[in-house]
Amino acid sequence: MKSFTIRLSEQITKKKSHLCVGLDINPEGLGNKNAKISDLIDHSLKIVDATIDLAVCYKPNLAFFERWGSDGFKWLEKIIGYIGNNGIIIADGKRGDIGNTAKQYAISIFDYFGFDAVTLNPYMGSDSIKPFIENPEKGVFILCRTSNQSALELQDLKVGKNNLYEEVAKLAVELNINDNIGLVVGATVPSEIRKIRKIAKKLPFLIPGIGAQGGDLEKSMKYGNKNGIAIINISRGISFAGDMSSQSIKNAAQDYVEKMREMING
Amino acid sequence: MKSFTIRLSEQITKKKSHLCVGLDINPEGLGNKNAKISDLIDHSLKIVDATIDLAVCYKPNLAFFERWGSDGFKWLEKIIGYIGNNGIIIADGKRGDIGNTAKQYAISIFDYFGFDAVTLNPYMGSDSIKPFIENPEKGVFILCRTSNQSALELQDLKVGKNNLYEEVAKLAVELNINDNIGLVVGATVPSEIRKIRKIAKKLPFLIPGIGAQGGDLEKSMKYGNKNGIAIINISRGISFAGDMSSQSIKNAAQDYVEKMREMING
Repeated sequence: MKSFTIRLSEQITKKKSHLCVGLDINPEGLGNKNAKISDLIDHSLKIVDATIDLAVCYKPNLAFFERWGSDGFKWLEKIIGYIGNNGIIIADGKRGDIGNTAKQYAISIFDYFGFDAVTLNPYMGSDSIKPFIENPEKGVFILCRTSNQSALELQDLKVGKNNLYEEVAKLAVELNINDNIGLVVGATVPSEIRKIRKIAKKLPFLIPGIGAQGGDLEKSMKYGNKNGIAIINISRGISFAGDMSSQSIKNAAQDYVEKMREMING
Repeated sequence: MKSFTIRLSEQITKKKSHLCVGLDINPEGLGNKNAKISDLIDHSLKIVDATIDLAVCYKPNLAFFERWGSDGFKWLEKIIGYIGNNGIIIADGKRGDIGNTAKQYAISIFDYFGFDAVTLNPYMGSDSIKPFIENPEKGVFILCRTSNQSALELQDLKVGKNNLYEEVAKLAVELNINDNIGLVVGATVPSEIRKIRKIAKKLPFLIPGIGAQGGDLEKSMKYGNKNGIAIINISRGISFAGDMSSQSIKNAAQDYVEKMREMING
């Protein structure tokens, strides 16, 4: 049995890519406020078709599905089946709850839907993480230092000599006995990526914040992909690229993948 | 237009109760591992019928619905319709995400499903809270000091003179311009309830942790229901009480409500 981190590394080698395609598909993104869920489903399958050789991971953001109620969950089931074993599928749910409830979420995300990994919020501590890391093949990415503007309000607070996010990184390292824990670290804060890499030497980093949020791709790869693996998430920059045709989406993904390759080789 | 906190107070006065019934219904709880979703649906409606005159709030825990996929969400829609305007319905989802995504969750929870309130995780800061508090009629309960054992790993860390959870309470007070923010504070840590009440003088507290987790009902009411309102959540202690008949469920709810009344008057 291969651990999640090994499965992730193998996909990176196979596809020669560090790209995660974020699936945050909404009517606003399509530029059509009256778009129906069937339009969104069609577009999401188009994105998968155009990027399947380039994307190591897909990251459906659960909020964008949940807002359509039970129909949104059918859509999610459809996408997961469509990607199948051709990519690592990360449920971006930022879950975090007490043990008994976390177990339900783990059943939902891994057993019912069949995701490979999930994003988790650490605020409730290790109880809320353990039910998700029992199976070494399935992975978690714990929020450490996020890319949004208000992240600093709590995450940067000083706890003794460290920032709170460094305490989270330490906790993740302690819990990583099954080689299946990664961290979410924002591309908007490259110096924090460097600091976290010193604590979590071998943990995979899932790095969002490139594009609309203004993150730094070069520094994210430089600091994030040292020792451990960095996976760079791009959502709107691929999903809604150019005229949103298959070719535009494919070109955008190809551009990102090539930039990342140059940064590794350069 | 009445604020969420005023709506909550009015329900408390009307029902002479501080009870929130947590809906965490699973086959394990029913003592029948092979229970089907239809059995769970029947049981959940039975609970609502037996407690509707006693419960100020209902708190469906989203994980317990999500694990059934799209069918689980249909169940959730059914329960919300069934309770209707006869109780305040809190989505226990512990959501927390960046602005754009938080907006999707707010659409999902308030507009699509029609919940009155939601539980939120503060780790990502005020960006992740603001989309949920724009409408004064709808409320949020922010995780402050939770009832689970590992809560202390991050929440109790010292930030200067305060614990992290006190910083969260301060942030909640700052954001409460629409009178619709409350805090989640565990019944397992009564001295923390007292400390948080000093910071968040008027915010409603949603207090879980009575029952299996061993929380202290008397102190939770004493410290939590001073100045501001305390709502006490009971899940398994009501849902799976006695022989799980309507009468057992009703009796358990009645017992809790009477205990709370005595504690207020006494």
